[in-house]
Amino acid sequence: MSILVVGSVAYDTVETPFGRAERVLGGSASFFSMAASFFAPVCLVGVVGTDFAEADVAVLRARGVDLEGLERMDGKTFEWHGRYAYDLNSRDTVRTDLNVFELFEPRIPPGYRKARHVFLGNIDPVLQRGVLDQIERPEIVACDTMNFWISGKPEELRKTLSRVDVLLINDAEARQLSGEWNIVKAAAAIRALGPATLVVKKGEHGVLMFSEHGFFAAPAYPLEQVFDPTGAGDSFAGGFLGYLASAGGRDDDVLLRAVVMGSTLASFCVEAFGVDRLKSLTRDEIDERYRLFKRLTHFEAP
Amino acid sequence: MSILVVGSVAYDTVETPFGRAERVLGGSASFFSMAASFFAPVCLVGVVGTDFAEADVAVLRARGVDLEGLERMDGKTFEWHGRYAYDLNSRDTVRTDLNVFELFEPRIPPGYRKARHVFLGNIDPVLQRGVLDQIERPEIVACDTMNFWISGKPEELRKTLSRVDVLLINDAEARQLSGEWNIVKAAAAIRALGPATLVVKKGEHGVLMFSEHGFFAAPAYPLEQVFDPTGAGDSFAGGFLGYLASAGGRDDDVLLRAVVMGSTLASFCVEAFGVDRLKSLTRDEIDERYRLFKRLTHFEAP
Repeated sequence: MSILVVGSVAYDTVETPFGRAERVLGGSASFFSMAASFFAPVCLVGVVGTDFAEADVAVLRARGVDLEGLERMDGKTFEWHGRYAYDLNSRDTVRTDLNVFELFEPRIPPGYRKARHVFLGNIDPVLQRGVLDQIERPEIVACDTMNFWISGKPEELRKTLSRVDVLLINDAEARQLSGEWNIVKAAAAIRALGPATLVVKKGEHGVLMFSEHGFFAAPAYPLEQVFDPTGAGDSFAGGFLGYLASAGGRDDDVLLRAVVMGSTLASFCVEAFGVDRLKSLTRDEIDERYRLFKRLTHFEAP
Repeated sequence: MSILVVGSVAYDTVETPFGRAERVLGGSASFFSMAASFFAPVCLVGVVGTDFAEADVAVLRARGVDLEGLERMDGKTFEWHGRYAYDLNSRDTVRTDLNVFELFEPRIPPGYRKARHVFLGNIDPVLQRGVLDQIERPEIVACDTMNFWISGKPEELRKTLSRVDVLLINDAEARQLSGEWNIVKAAAAIRALGPATLVVKKGEHGVLMFSEHGFFAAPAYPLEQVFDPTGAGDSFAGGFLGYLASAGGRDDDVLLRAVVMGSTLASFCVEAFGVDRLKSLTRDEIDERYRLFKRLTHFEAP
């Protein structure tokens, strides 16, 4: 049962208080597929330029990611340059060069169209819907978006959300999308737009999930060194949807475990620049940290 | 086994986006004792002026709080006036009139000196130490403080902390006190000052506890209506220390349950102005919400 991800593949230049990484592999589809690949086969749809290095193709291949859907276009790969403040919670975009990504029109290879689990990375909601039109009968459609689309294409976004099962956004985006400050009310308003399940990502404060069964909270794993937060959200999504694909169904207890698996993958992602930590990661390390999450959160009756 | 609390008893005027409350019972010792009283007898040491209403004495008495240590001094009761922003996370102090609280020198009645559980509310660290000098052999000393003392009396605060078992402060205070931004490193630095257990309060994002056994995270209960956040931290402390006093010991599993009980009491506190919700609260409601906290956070092996 493969997972289909559609999103960006990029070269990131990242500055943190701990150092700088120059043109390293990034983009939502890269982080997502590296994380999800620990649970199920991943098919990637994205676009890169002629400058995209074979070494980076090899990084994704090493994790078994199917790259038939990775289009190579004349021009340069999407480049992003960001700088994090000392608290690692706020970042400035120094520069964004969309390059070939500006012309991205996702074409889903015939072999991908039976995918049962789909992740729509943060792209134009019109394109997100175009992807869904090419998929036969997905079981779970998960989706990310951002302030740019919430304010810029609200009607298109609503049409897309009506076809989405799980929306994963941050708390500021949830408030903006719903117009509600209170996060419980915001979640109810967003779920009324379509997504039965809403995952609200709060960075170092963890995540809240709202589903038809109620709500669930998971902390972020307290790390002594958060090295580079880039990609944490997409790694979360990869662990989350990857786990759902491997476990099957979407009962509440499966969703809860998926949230913790997402948090686990995100906690590894931020330990090094770009996808570096995901490259060396093993399933044993994942399972060990999942167990630590349990110790971190469980308690008995009074 | 009674709990001794030393702190402020005040009249609060509170403005929130939902309304305004005029001169209602507040202060750290009031919130703490109301919350802790559900678990063990509470002895309160504080000071009020001649304007302190019998009706407010009755509110504390109704929860069985021992008020032998509540001194009545010529002058007016401590008054605080605060205004919350629409997000309820930030507040401005409109006015603070310390009044008789400025002359507060805690005198512990002889009958209180055998207290085994002590909560030192947010007062001058010199006074906090003066309280400890009057206690015979406390089992657990818990303590609150704030930025004012962290920057204003750092050496006195350190002397006090060397005699404290549990420090409860917010994340900004933990960072200020330790000089470390990363919260795991901050916790290690603070625990090296004395407190074996550190509880870091993060408002709507819940709490992190660091102890000799590792760390533990509890979310804040997601409420559809947070009415007035005033007193949440002291209600947390009351539920936390109250539970410890009733359960006995401070093994890790007891500490975890105490954190959840603290979060439970704080979640009720913010549902109404001042101590209003704590007045009507029942033990059954507490136990029911504690169970909901378990549903909110527990998950199984993958």
